[in-house]
Amino acid sequence: MGLNDIGEFGFIRRIRRGCLIRPEGVIQGIGDDAAAFRTDGRLVSLVTTDLLVERVHFLRHAISGRDLGHKSLAVNLSDIAAMGGTAREAFVSIAIPDGCELAYLEDIFQGMKDLARNYAVNILGGDTTFSRSDLIINVAVYGMVAENEMLTRAAARPGDVIFCTGCLGDSRAGLHLILEGAPVDTPELQALLAAHCRPEPHLREGRLLAAAPGVRAAIDVSDGLSSDLGHIVEESRAGARVYAARLPISDNLRFFCRRFGRSPLDYALSGGEDYTLLLTAAAGSAGAIAGAFQTAFGRPLTAIGEITDTARMELVDDAGDIAPIAPTGWDHFKRP
Amino acid sequence: MGLNDIGEFGFIRRIRRGCLIRPEGVIQGIGDDAAAFRTDGRLVSLVTTDLLVERVHFLRHAISGRDLGHKSLAVNLSDIAAMGGTAREAFVSIAIPDGCELAYLEDIFQGMKDLARNYAVNILGGDTTFSRSDLIINVAVYGMVAENEMLTRAAARPGDVIFCTGCLGDSRAGLHLILEGAPVDTPELQALLAAHCRPEPHLREGRLLAAAPGVRAAIDVSDGLSSDLGHIVEESRAGARVYAARLPISDNLRFFCRRFGRSPLDYALSGGEDYTLLLTAAAGSAGAIAGAFQTAFGRPLTAIGEITDTARMELVDDAGDIAPIAPTGWDHFKRP
Repeated sequence: MGLNDIGEFGFIRRIRRGCLIRPEGVIQGIGDDAAAFRTDGRLVSLVTTDLLVERVHFLRHAISGRDLGHKSLAVNLSDIAAMGGTAREAFVSIAIPDGCELAYLEDIFQGMKDLARNYAVNILGGDTTFSRSDLIINVAVYGMVAENEMLTRAAARPGDVIFCTGCLGDSRAGLHLILEGAPVDTPELQALLAAHCRPEPHLREGRLLAAAPGVRAAIDVSDGLSSDLGHIVEESRAGARVYAARLPISDNLRFFCRRFGRSPLDYALSGGEDYTLLLTAAAGSAGAIAGAFQTAFGRPLTAIGEITDTARMELVDDAGDIAPIAPTGWDHFKRP
Repeated sequence: MGLNDIGEFGFIRRIRRGCLIRPEGVIQGIGDDAAAFRTDGRLVSLVTTDLLVERVHFLRHAISGRDLGHKSLAVNLSDIAAMGGTAREAFVSIAIPDGCELAYLEDIFQGMKDLARNYAVNILGGDTTFSRSDLIINVAVYGMVAENEMLTRAAARPGDVIFCTGCLGDSRAGLHLILEGAPVDTPELQALLAAHCRPEPHLREGRLLAAAPGVRAAIDVSDGLSSDLGHIVEESRAGARVYAARLPISDNLRFFCRRFGRSPLDYALSGGEDYTLLLTAAAGSAGAIAGAFQTAFGRPLTAIGEITDTARMELVDDAGDIAPIAPTGWDHFKRP
């Protein structure tokens, strides 16, 4: 048996056994957007870490140093956002192959610093080393949250409204443009490319939602809606029903799909790396939460469906027909 | 100008500018064994991170999964030890190439878990992904320390005694055995190989020393005595004098040097990855500190020299002659 057989999540299930050695003070170990643990203060500490590998997560010729730095930090800040936390300190490890330009490396750090400044995050440490082949970047981020405001994947309850803080599928369309080498010759396509290369972490959105009464579960959309909603459903031991007509699909993605003959619904369901937040909220609080979100950010919090008491994820199409949703998001190891 | 010209430490000096965005609460940013910052409790939080890259830090065929896991965590625990802290939580990112055996990967995590158990450290999270070529492991560790017990590189003062918590050069000899493919056919050579593959973090030693009155600066020996003492001297704006005859050189290293025609002194001065602690203490407290160390651990705390008010690092040889020590430890980017 190999990694290809058990997949990324099967591998994680195997290695997580025996990782919790001193349970006291640990609120969340392996299995959510970030780990959560108590130190000696009132607030809970959060830590998340993400590893970006050249030729797996990015192509060096296809992304600027600034965008790569921005994205490397943004994906971590997004995990803190999905816990409802405030990001505080970042730690950057980088392994640099021969021939990697100093200017490119400095741009990576500039991209990180520019994003860090927007969210008052320090870059406090890291590691710098050599690599024989690929450029490697690992970022770890420390954050904090009040325990009663912390959002996990496991807190959804049947009847909850499922919300999304931004559009779905844009980043996947941007990736398509890169992989196909398609000309990015319109503002719509430029916006999709930016969605892929410079995702904005929804830290402020996460804080507002975490403090709002009635918000229950949250996750960030990194693997794709079907996979990430699947994590909420699995951890909360519930089901979900999503309405195709309600999915937040940008005009840019519709433009892209018309030009390249793609389905916006497929991109919205299965496209990863949007780094919007997916959350659930008690139905009775949903209206107030959406209103507060609209007031704070000037854009809607989109209700896309509801949590159910089945063990299924279902999609309701425009005709009202119901079909199962399979998690089709990314697995780093499974091969077709 | 490229990385080869400015070297690893030149690169770090360039990128650290602009990393501190919100200075309040930050006690130590880039430039010590770990970062130190305040949260909302009484204790100071410590974070360190280290990236291990195949074909740079290890050869997969030459190290068992268990040893690789042990070492990946140990080098981080050693950084917490050098701050005088208690290690608490670890976060493991791993990028796995095609064909890497599941059993080897599980052994890596078992090696980490076994070491973590010895120091009551949890593995609380991480990231698992694919790599196109090399196996990559990044570990980040969170720890804590009372602010008045925290040890930094910058606190040495002229007149301080320089101590070392263990032998120097053993790990470098173990690396030599691996790189030369030499037969490891005696207990002495086996011990040197183990020193390289399974370094023991001096966390308990670090805690005892941090709590002892008179201990001032500390660092762990990762790049080699000459380089790491150089960091203390540079950060403390002082000098150092080291006595060749006092350097803690193991019988195993002497055996190795006789067999392979090497100089024990060179190995002790320039060999890296020993992960012993190097510290300085006020001369008036040195005796009491060494006595407490001997009592607690049953082995000596070795006084190897003293901090001076020159800007030089000097070696006193057996004849009493004085020669400058150049930092000859590892730089990941500089080429001869």
